[in-house]
Order: sequence, then C-alpha cells, then structure tokens
Amino acid sequence: MARPILHHRTPQFEALMTEVCAGLQTLFQTREPVLMLASSGTGVMEAAVVNLLSRGDRVITVDAGKFGARWEKLCRTYGVEPIVLRCERGQALHPARLEEALARNPGVKAVLFQASETSTGTRMPVREICALARRFGALSICDAITAMGVFELPMDAWDIDCLMTASQKALMLPPGLSFIALSARAWEAQARADLPRFYFDLAREKKAQLRSQSAWTPATTLIMGLQESLRLILSEGLPRVFARHERLGQATRQAARALGLGILAEEAPSAAVTAVQVPASINDGKLIPRLMRDRYDVVIAGGQDELEGRIFRLSHFGNCSAADILTGITALEQTLRDLGHPFTAGAGIEAARSVLSEEQQHG
Amino acid sequence: MARPILHHRTPQFEALMTEVCAGLQTLFQTREPVLMLASSGTGVMEAAVVNLLSRGDRVITVDAGKFGARWEKLCRTYGVEPIVLRCERGQALHPARLEEALARNPGVKAVLFQASETSTGTRMPVREICALARRFGALSICDAITAMGVFELPMDAWDIDCLMTASQKALMLPPGLSFIALSARAWEAQARADLPRFYFDLAREKKAQLRSQSAWTPATTLIMGLQESLRLILSEGLPRVFARHERLGQATRQAARALGLGILAEEAPSAAVTAVQVPASINDGKLIPRLMRDRYDVVIAGGQDELEGRIFRLSHFGNCSAADILTGITALEQTLRDLGHPFTAGAGIEAARSVLSEEQQHG
Repeated sequence: MARPILHHRTPQFEALMTEVCAGLQTLFQTREPVLMLASSGTGVMEAAVVNLLSRGDRVITVDAGKFGARWEKLCRTYGVEPIVLRCERGQALHPARLEEALARNPGVKAVLFQASETSTGTRMPVREICALARRFGALSICDAITAMGVFELPMDAWDIDCLMTASQKALMLPPGLSFIALSARAWEAQARADLPRFYFDLAREKKAQLRSQSAWTPATTLIMGLQESLRLILSEGLPRVFARHERLGQATRQAARALGLGILAEEAPSAAVTAVQVPASINDGKLIPRLMRDRYDVVIAGGQDELEGRIFRLSHFGNCSAADILTGITALEQTLRDLGHPFTAGAGIEAARSVLSEEQQHG
Repeated sequence: MARPILHHRTPQFEALMTEVCAGLQTLFQTREPVLMLASSGTGVMEAAVVNLLSRGDRVITVDAGKFGARWEKLCRTYGVEPIVLRCERGQALHPARLEEALARNPGVKAVLFQASETSTGTRMPVREICALARRFGALSICDAITAMGVFELPMDAWDIDCLMTASQKALMLPPGLSFIALSARAWEAQARADLPRFYFDLAREKKAQLRSQSAWTPATTLIMGLQESLRLILSEGLPRVFARHERLGQATRQAARALGLGILAEEAPSAAVTAVQVPASINDGKLIPRLMRDRYDVVIAGGQDELEGRIFRLSHFGNCSAADILTGITALEQTLRDLGHPFTAGAGIEAARSVLSEEQQHG
C-alpha cells in the first residue's frame, strides 16, 4: 500500500483486479462475482438494501445487537417495513423463532441478519437461517463484516443470497473498502427492486468487473493491500485459518473464565470477538479498555449503547497469533489487578496457554 | 499511511481529526465544518443530491462534459427533475444563459455544476454561477473534485452553498476519501429535504464531527495521509499553490500550441488539467496515451465518451513541479514524433521552459 499509487484505468490495475476478484470468490466460496465498493461497512449494508428491496416491502431483521439494529434503521430509511426479531444481548436467534415469523408473515421479501454480531460476540446460525429463508421464498441477506475469513461461510453451498464484508476486519486492511456478492436469485431481485441507487448500483459494478474495472474511482491502494492479504489467507488455507480463529477464541474464553469473568455469548460465541462481562467487583466498566490502552498499549473495545460499561470486547481474528492472545491476557490480568478484581495470578495466562498448546500437539 | 493502522475510537484518532478538520476549513475557506466520507467522488456527489433535494424538485444541471452529465443522472435516479444546460465540449457556461434559465423557471431549487470539468479541462465561472443562484433563491452545488486546492474557490466569500472534493486529486492522496461542506442556508435545506439517506447522511456526520469523530468507520489511513498533504499545502500557502498551478497550466498549453496542437478549452482553460486536441496528422488518437505510458512511462488520460480518440489530457495539479511538466512534454514530443506528427523538435519544451522561467524571475 506504500507503493506509488496505481492509475486505475491501466492494464496494471486490470491485472490486479483479475487476481483479487478470483481470490475473493475463493474466500466467499462462490461462483458469483464478488464486487468491491469504496465505502466502509455501513455503506455495503446500504448497498444490499437499495439493490434488493423495494419501497413497501416487508422484511425480517434480526436485532441481536447494535449491528442488527442497523438493518432495521436502514430499512425504515428507505420505506421498507421491518418485522424485528429482537434477541437478548448475547443470545443467537433460535431458528424456530424465525420459522414461526416466516410462517406468520407470508410474502416477507428478505431476512437481514449478521453472521457474527460484533457488539455482543455472538455467532448466528447462518446455515439454518438461509435454509429457512429459501424455504419461505425470502432472500437471505447476511452481514459477514466480522465473520468472513473467520469461520466457515460457504456462500453457494449454504444458499446465502447476499453476503458482504469489509476490509478492516479479518482481511487485515485499513477501512475504506467493502465487498458484496449476490446469488443468481438475488440478481433477479436486483433487476426488479425499485429503491434508488447510483454510487451503490451493483449492476453497474458487475458490468465494470467483467472488464476487470470498477464503475467509479476505486480505493486503489486498499486493493493493492488486498492482493497481499488474500495471498496470506489463501496460502495459509481457509480450513487452517478457520481452525486458528476457533482456537484463539477458545483460548480467550477459557482465560476469561479462569479470571472469574462471564462470557456474554456463552451459548453461541463468535470466533471473531469475545464480549466479556464486567465483574461486579469493578464499578466503572469503561475503565478496563482505557487502562489496558493507556497503561499496557493493548487496544480493546468497550460495550456500545445499552452495553456501555457492562462488557469489554477482545478481538481475535485476522493478523492474530497465539502470542497476541497471551499478550492481551497478560495486559488484562494487570488491568484487573490494578482495579482490585480478585483472581489467582496467572490463571488467565495458564488457561489460554493450555488451549493454545493443544494446537501445537494437534498441528 | 504506511504506519500501523490507528483505531478510530481513540483519543489519538480524535487529535488527528481535530487537526485535519481545521486544515480542511482553511482549504475550503469556510467557517462551516468540512465533513469526510469514506467514498470516492461519485459518492460525495450523491451525498449532495440526497441531502439537499426532495423528490419532484426542479433543478438546473450544467452539462459541460462527462461529470456535468453525472449530475443529471444522479438527479433522475432520485426523482429530481433536471433542466439541463448543455455546453459545447470545451466551452464554459455563459452566466447569461444561467440567468435566463433561472428567470424562465421560477422555483428552481438548486444549480449543480463543476468548478473544473475534468473531461474537457474547462474552468467554470463559479463566482458568477453562485451569485446568480443566490439572487434567484437557488442553492449552488459545486463539484470541485479537480478544482479544490488548484485555484481560488473561497466558499464563504463566494456564497457557495455546497462544495465538495475528493482525496485523489490536488490533495495528492489515494482515492477513497471525500469531503463536503454546506453553507448555513444549505444546512436549513438539509433539514427539510426528503430524499432517503443513511450512509451519506451529513447531519449524522456533522454531529459526530463535533466530537472529533465519524458517524461510520472512517478511512483511517487516508486521513493519516491527509494530515501530511494538508501540512504540505498549507505550508506552501494557498496563494502560492494557486499561482503554481496557474503557471504549470500555462506552460502546458504553450507547449501544446508550439507543437501545433489545439487546446479544447481555449477560452476557459482549467488550471487542473489541459485537454489537447488530437491533430489531423494522427489517425488513432487513442495511441497517444498508450505510447506515452508504454514507451516513456508517463501516464496521461485519453478522452471519454464522445471525446474518445479526439483529445488527450495532461494533468498539472497536486504533487506536480516544473520538472514534471518538462518531463511530460518531452515524452509527448517523442510520442508525436513516433506517430509522424510534424513539428519543430524541442519547440514544446522551449515554450514550456519559457513560461516556467518567468516563474523563477518572479519568485
């Protein structure tokens, strides 16, 4: 990305596009083109709505956290009527609830949900949701912003109709580039949908990509970086990448439990990020991320909206190794000690190490 | 930009935002906040339309080339009715035509135009257009994508109601970041306008920027680069930056004329880019950019749409010096010789050098 900027209307750029578009298809596990937009994640979510839906359509949105709630807001902005399935924070959607909602609301056009709800660290039953949507003739629209490249999401095999992600998560790039693919069924819906779209018009992007080009000026340097990150991911191999994330997530959760901390999404944890409950021993939960950053140089996230001060979040995806987890847990132990939370010193490290050393035995 | 990626919900990022937002106000010559979007130029043009207009509004669009035509398409996409003032390619809009159109169409909500029409290298009479729009109660919406930081565009002094640019032109950055500012009058219109908007909702961005934040995940590394490019521009000083661009444009045009080539926008040339007419001696005009790139490593642009093969375009803005102009003209002379166009060897270089040496005498 630090190389001189490539002009985008050149054969050099087109060669780059050809390589990265093929790599993205491998990553998405699809034969459909994966399109790139110069936007961050919210932009590509909006692209899904305006390309696939029409004014007055009824849809189901799964609100399991801040990002699920964003689907609802986006739909209302465009005159699409959402039926909201709200989940307790940290709970995944139970497929039976979706089945009931689809049965009770014939004609629902789409189900919009997250593969991994970033605000709570919860993994959703993507395969089941997509199968139900297909059975009831609705499109499945899946935000995989913190899931793509973290765990298994085979677009074609699971009948995911619209799958999207962004550059700054497991693709290990700066923010500013997003990705979206549509199934054949979704492309048919795209041609019929009547919401206004121009910058995010996916038909234009698809047409441009046939010539290894982009409809509008692309985020060139991020695409140059993408070439490298796809090479890293595909040379490690998707199964190993997924197994690594699974192990890093397990190690993080075991460490938290060993420190006497609860996992918010205990029943359906995401391999991307772990939301840890602030213990009763600590009054101001917002202090945990702040001290970890300012004293120990480890940047983690707090809770958002209703979860502010109640959780903190440890990510373990992308350019993340066993050593990074141990560094993070060490900083967490120090911070908890500073704040007076009682625990057995080294218990978190030991628990994480135990999970991570299984990896070495198996690997 | 090659530094480690800054997390955007940190005091470090907020300090960066505070500095660049102040720098952008100096660049735009406005007291209003200049907002940043993670998008390329077409995205920020769409942001202007969806924030300031309502379905059924009548507007005037100035179509002096490919980018003027884009205003018309954007308006039609959203059910806004454009009255199109088409200009001959290479001609600027005559203010009298706009005055007549405004007088004949009372109730026009806005005038949408380019400060510099990139596809033809034409400079528009921005000050006059904005004064007329103000007189008739219409908003002036000015695409300054290839004009901002190239020539004088004082937003507040000239009553420009909406002014926008993008990162990859005179701001010398990779593509993927765009900028927009609204006048007080435009903010009032923003509150009343009813087109749907979410990712491009400027009210949300304004609210976030008050906390030195962004509504959505920002294009962090480009903003880190922006800090440097604003420092470069503001330490050179806007008057010197504008004078340099004026001189580089003059040198380019004089060189082209000395080689027996016509300037498309002879009457109103832009200081950003010069569109040169392909001479009758050369059959395939598309060969000129291709040979310059492949044989002499100088990347220039061809004509677009109806101007394809009829012009080629030499840019002279941003990170561009007298030496760059001489290098470009040298490559152009070589290419014209290869294609059999007759001219006095060295005449282009000599003409450019003569303009550029005046600079040294004055400087």
